Amino acid sequence: MIHSMTRTKSANAGRRGLVIVNTGHGKGKTTAALGVLMRAWGRNMRIGGIQFFKNENASFGETKAVDRMGIELTAMGDGFTWTSRNMDETTAKAVHGWEVAQQKIVSGDYDIFLLDEFTYVLSFGWVDVNSAVAWLRENKPPSLHLIITGRDAPQALVDYADLVTEMRLVKHPFEAEGLAAQPGIEF
Amino acid sequence: MIHSMTRTKSANAGRRGLVIVNTGHGKGKTTAALGVLMRAWGRNMRIGGIQFFKNENASFGETKAVDRMGIELTAMGDGFTWTSRNMDETTAKAVHGWEVAQQKIVSGDYDIFLLDEFTYVLSFGWVDVNSAVAWLRENKPPSLHLIITGRDAPQALVDYADLVTEMRLVKHPFEAEGLAAQPGIEF
Repeated sequence: MIHSMTRTKSANAGRRGLVIVNTGHGKGKTTAALGVLMRAWGRNMRIGGIQFFKNENASFGETKAVDRMGIELTAMGDGFTWTSRNMDETTAKAVHGWEVAQQKIVSGDYDIFLLDEFTYVLSFGWVDVNSAVAWLRENKPPSLHLIITGRDAPQALVDYADLVTEMRLVKHPFEAEGLAAQPGIEF
Repeated sequence: MIHSMTRTKSANAGRRGLVIVNTGHGKGKTTAALGVLMRAWGRNMRIGGIQFFKNENASFGETKAVDRMGIELTAMGDGFTWTSRNMDETTAKAVHGWEVAQQKIVSGDYDIFLLDEFTYVLSFGWVDVNSAVAWLRENKPPSLHLIITGRDAPQALVDYADLVTEMRLVKHPFEAEGLAAQPGIEF
């Protein structure tokens, strides 16, 4: 969309870091976050992020893209709980991911930071949502943009966020037609 | 999200081109389309697109990003109708944009093609939606992925599409708090 408001030349000048949440059961939560990172990359912003449930060894289109672009996205976790044979390890990796995220968020090294699929860590109770929000309110640098994705964003996170979008499924080929997922589209 | 289905090594092998529509009044329609293009770029797919209402001279974060990535996105139009002083010229540019898009779509030069904000061209009646869908059914290469964005996707387009997502506004800082748009986030 076109916006006709004033633009600052420096990405940092007078910037108020936004907290953006992409939630809902539809497609496009992580994808839209990637689009935001792409825009930020176009403006030479310092970009980082944690992908909480992405296997470190997976090589998705987005992984290849961020590698080519030089964007730092750290994979944490070993896949979703329902495919994990070791729940304790999955939990531990997610909690560790949050600790790593906290260090990176306070570091001042980033203009924009992604917590991809972090809502699951909160809604599964591995990290207490009120503690996480309280920590962010206290420690997130004011100019840092933060993007959080995942289904079922807890209300405390929605209350904290500036911009919340729900991606709602209207029509989906995998359900409607049983098509295989497409490389470059879904992963 | 992680999907556990089979993946093909070649982006083109057995590919069924999907028609993806991002609609709704929330944020993230174009942004998620950019994220899909970024994934496709990571897989070295051939990417093209028309941005129907983006001024040719505008330099948004996404424009800078696609330039750096070597993605071909062609800007058509001179901004939205409500800012245009010359409705006929705006209409003509949009119709011309569709003609250019048609040429590119049938060319076979792309694996994935974006029609950004094309729903407005249809819903304003500048291009008849039934004619456009009939043309696409007839002429879109079967393996070409097509992404169409914009509010209020007409029903005939939804019927044609494989995957339709509605971006729904839950909370928005510009409405809620009157914040200025942020470089690298919104544009």
